[in-house]
Amino acid sequence: MSKMESERLFVKTLTKTLKRTLCEEINENDKGLEFNLKGWVMHYRDHGSLIFIDLRDYSGTIQIVFDETISPQSFKTAKKIRNEFVVSVLGVVRIRPSGTENPHLKTGKIEIEARSVELLNDCETLPFQIEEEKEAGVNELMRLKYRYLDLRRKKLKENIIFRSNFTFSIRNFLQKKGFFDIETPFLTKSTPEGSRDFLVPSRLNIGSFYALPQSPQLFKQILMVSGFERYYQIVRCFRDEDLRADRQPEFTQLDMEMSFVNKDDILSLTEELLSGVFGELLNIKLNLPFPRLNYDDAMDTYGSDKPDTRFEMTLKKLSHIFVNSSFNLFKDTITGGGEVKGICLKTGSNLLSRKDIDELVSFAKEFGAKGLAWTKVGENKTFDGGISKFISIGERSNLINELNAENGDMIFYQADLKRIANAVLGKLRVHLAKKFNLIPKSKFNFLWVVNFPLFEYSEEEKKIVSVHHPFTSPKLSDIDILISDPLKARSESYDFVLNGEEIGGGSIRIHKKELQEQIFKILKITPENARLKFGFLLDALSFGAPPHGGIAFGIDRILMLLRNENSIRDVIAFPKTQKAYCPLTDTPSKIESMQLREVGISLLKK
Amino acid sequence: MSKMESERLFVKTLTKTLKRTLCEEINENDKGLEFNLKGWVMHYRDHGSLIFIDLRDYSGTIQIVFDETISPQSFKTAKKIRNEFVVSVLGVVRIRPSGTENPHLKTGKIEIEARSVELLNDCETLPFQIEEEKEAGVNELMRLKYRYLDLRRKKLKENIIFRSNFTFSIRNFLQKKGFFDIETPFLTKSTPEGSRDFLVPSRLNIGSFYALPQSPQLFKQILMVSGFERYYQIVRCFRDEDLRADRQPEFTQLDMEMSFVNKDDILSLTEELLSGVFGELLNIKLNLPFPRLNYDDAMDTYGSDKPDTRFEMTLKKLSHIFVNSSFNLFKDTITGGGEVKGICLKTGSNLLSRKDIDELVSFAKEFGAKGLAWTKVGENKTFDGGISKFISIGERSNLINELNAENGDMIFYQADLKRIANAVLGKLRVHLAKKFNLIPKSKFNFLWVVNFPLFEYSEEEKKIVSVHHPFTSPKLSDIDILISDPLKARSESYDFVLNGEEIGGGSIRIHKKELQEQIFKILKITPENARLKFGFLLDALSFGAPPHGGIAFGIDRILMLLRNENSIRDVIAFPKTQKAYCPLTDTPSKIESMQLREVGISLLKK
Repeated sequence: MSKMESERLFVKTLTKTLKRTLCEEINENDKGLEFNLKGWVMHYRDHGSLIFIDLRDYSGTIQIVFDETISPQSFKTAKKIRNEFVVSVLGVVRIRPSGTENPHLKTGKIEIEARSVELLNDCETLPFQIEEEKEAGVNELMRLKYRYLDLRRKKLKENIIFRSNFTFSIRNFLQKKGFFDIETPFLTKSTPEGSRDFLVPSRLNIGSFYALPQSPQLFKQILMVSGFERYYQIVRCFRDEDLRADRQPEFTQLDMEMSFVNKDDILSLTEELLSGVFGELLNIKLNLPFPRLNYDDAMDTYGSDKPDTRFEMTLKKLSHIFVNSSFNLFKDTITGGGEVKGICLKTGSNLLSRKDIDELVSFAKEFGAKGLAWTKVGENKTFDGGISKFISIGERSNLINELNAENGDMIFYQADLKRIANAVLGKLRVHLAKKFNLIPKSKFNFLWVVNFPLFEYSEEEKKIVSVHHPFTSPKLSDIDILISDPLKARSESYDFVLNGEEIGGGSIRIHKKELQEQIFKILKITPENARLKFGFLLDALSFGAPPHGGIAFGIDRILMLLRNENSIRDVIAFPKTQKAYCPLTDTPSKIESMQLREVGISLLKK
Repeated sequence: MSKMESERLFVKTLTKTLKRTLCEEINENDKGLEFNLKGWVMHYRDHGSLIFIDLRDYSGTIQIVFDETISPQSFKTAKKIRNEFVVSVLGVVRIRPSGTENPHLKTGKIEIEARSVELLNDCETLPFQIEEEKEAGVNELMRLKYRYLDLRRKKLKENIIFRSNFTFSIRNFLQKKGFFDIETPFLTKSTPEGSRDFLVPSRLNIGSFYALPQSPQLFKQILMVSGFERYYQIVRCFRDEDLRADRQPEFTQLDMEMSFVNKDDILSLTEELLSGVFGELLNIKLNLPFPRLNYDDAMDTYGSDKPDTRFEMTLKKLSHIFVNSSFNLFKDTITGGGEVKGICLKTGSNLLSRKDIDELVSFAKEFGAKGLAWTKVGENKTFDGGISKFISIGERSNLINELNAENGDMIFYQADLKRIANAVLGKLRVHLAKKFNLIPKSKFNFLWVVNFPLFEYSEEEKKIVSVHHPFTSPKLSDIDILISDPLKARSESYDFVLNGEEIGGGSIRIHKKELQEQIFKILKITPENARLKFGFLLDALSFGAPPHGGIAFGIDRILMLLRNENSIRDVIAFPKTQKAYCPLTDTPSKIESMQLREVGISLLKK
């Protein structure tokens, strides 16, 4: 290799130790001082005998001027510069000429007059522009394939930096509260969180498999039995789901567990944690305590166990109005044990076209509705369109009172089993609010949903299943009905909701072996199966397990909401697509058959 | 279920909110005050009308007295208590009667006079005693199976708590230094760190596989290309190795990467980090900077690239003494291009029996020696035994000078290729030091080994391979010999050594695509293969990659050394055995064939 070649392959500054300054560390007071700046070139502008660039490093940007008359050598080198080249510049701070300041830039009043410049690396033609703040026009697959370029965008970069500060702020709080950060295994046993496990074949134990954890649930309980009393971990978890929604196969969880606490202790601590972090990072003061809604009330009022309370349009019970109605559809539903419920869209008559309404009917049917009845509200308590003709004058008056309806509003009805009516109207409520921008963007509405049922009946599995997981403690007051009427029993669990998204949840756990066995029995998990899957937990509960409980938060989802993003992919440095694929590394990928043989497996023929 | 049964299954205090105090929060000044304590029972002692227990929580222990005359009800309940029961005690602080203080206990001057007590949970007969501080006699498999009991031991508990403080202290330092904690994927592509990957079959992309990361190497380089400049992560890594040594299939790494830095920047920052953490957690002041040894010097002087400098017994070159020797074995080795080297074990003549010496010969042969020559040093520069009769009086005198030998010492010789002589004497040096307790336990000898070769010849693969990894930058001064004499080229890498163990290492990386391609070529990685495996890195290097470098530390190993443990299993909450097996959860384990079918694989027939 020639000397010239080797120099081209190498960077001379590698062994220099010039002190380097960050762009935004410099201000007007530094006028006349010389600095060394290093970073990436944005906005290269050639004005004849002057060349301007904006230099970007992780702190921000600053303008650099190359002046042929001041430093011909630098100017000559600068001629070769293109966007996103990496450069090291030595230059002197000067105040920008009047009228040329850039008010959008923190360093907009100054610029650097270059005295020397070194090209540290060049850059090929970009597949897309980095400067444009909006991703509009750039395909997300392209963005993910060139993630290193995408991450240079201001918004994405700030999201990732915020994430770092966010998790550190949480750690700082918990550390001060006496929590211990304890690592749990990744190569572990299947945990029964209701999703599919990712499997890892074992080479040293051919025919056996590890599973990647869906959560550290059992280990954190074991840690309580060990006597650590206050555990936390910010930890990756894995679920092999069909990624229909905005989910990732691997996601990050803040995981906590405490001994000798009750539900209120955990809720208060969480509130204190959140308000501390909000104050520190966002300078937002949260009102404590957050509202606590009963599960039943949340379903009745919002049709959801993760209600978005940033807007009204709540669900109203209308059965009492229609109990003697001449509209048979409603009356029969009520007689048959169902309910009639409704919501009122303010000014809906004007907002919705006939086509819109048809779409809403289809929307409702997607969520199990038989149809979607509606009426427009006119002047003087008149009704118009939809099922208006079936509704008597007296009923109209009652409806208008119940729903606070006014001229121009629109009412939607569901007559069905309470469960279905709630679910459909709950979905419709959110759908309408999004469609008509009824949701204030800057609000952070945190709330708790409590008193969930312990069990539910799974139509799919044709048996009783846990609403949360089988280690959730029933409420003390409902212990007596566990066997006689299990679906009525409520649990000591709590979901944490922000702006209509579930961002966390937890429970007081069962800490008595007998009760845990009882729950397995109700869930029709045979003693043999219980032993096979959870034997070590049952053993642990029999060796002095303290009362304990905990909570876990979805870090990705919280960050998405805090950063006002629409996708969790925008708060994750290296996310996967909805097909669990990474376009950057082309992962997952084929592997050599030798690797499969080593772990004792083979591919199934298609 | 009857009311009584349900009460037995449940704990009444669950919903109580009595403020609870920790054992070691209480002292003599609290005399007469009432507290609620919760924890585990140690040392239950029944003295007739008095029952004593030591109550343990995570803060420590305190003595509780149940006095039949003071609280008959508590006394009655206390009668049912056994070791490791979980209890809640309400009691009053009193000063212990003179002569009954326990000087070993922080709370040894006081005790709690119980007024009421509640049994929160009971405990079956323990498989082993928790109180005994030494694990002697308890099989490690038993300890791991009942890990929740093992973790109640003081030493193990303190290790895990120290670990939490240790990693937090690191984070705190790096956060202040402007580092960003950025998460990288776990479901990713195979990285070429020289070990086997753990594989994860993909269900959504049948026939394709993820690999668990051996390190976030490529992602952290990508983050530098993205412009984050200062990255860190405390992250789990995975290697599917044959676990002959004290290794775990999953281990934790402190991973760092920086842009626009040189080697010295990284070394200084590491030293500052370590000395900060040592000061904060151990109150130990480390002398900075740590010594920097050239790889060649480390091998010549200590026969190891991870020298333990806590003791002397260094390797000496003796070839010049034997160059004209009448001892043909030595002379011929030197003539043939080999070397004669030796070490001197102080007072070795008295320490070693004939049988010991035979064992040492076998030991040396294990590491490739043809044999192990030795001589005892007697009075007046006489030699005795071994190869003494082949050594002339002049040679003896020179040897004694060279090795600082005295009457009673023992000299061991190796005549072989320099590489082999160094390796054998290096191993022997450490072996002898351990055997005869020559290593001061309380010393922390940190050092750097620098100027490693870039490549080495692999006898196994019959080709040149990277000493570290293929992204390591060569030294600027050695660029010219990369092709002409690659095995002479040195790298910009550094290993970090504590007390003879490699606890970290890193390098300045290649940031130019052309140089990276050049290295792949030397390593005989075809352009097609390079593209397949590292295409995204090569692409990234061509889009404005800054000069960058980094380092990674093995957290488990550092903690083992700091805590003076012999196994990393003692600083990990839930370790696996040497067969990568977890006795607690019985993992890895068989899974249902349906799970295999879902991911498109089947077990190979044996």
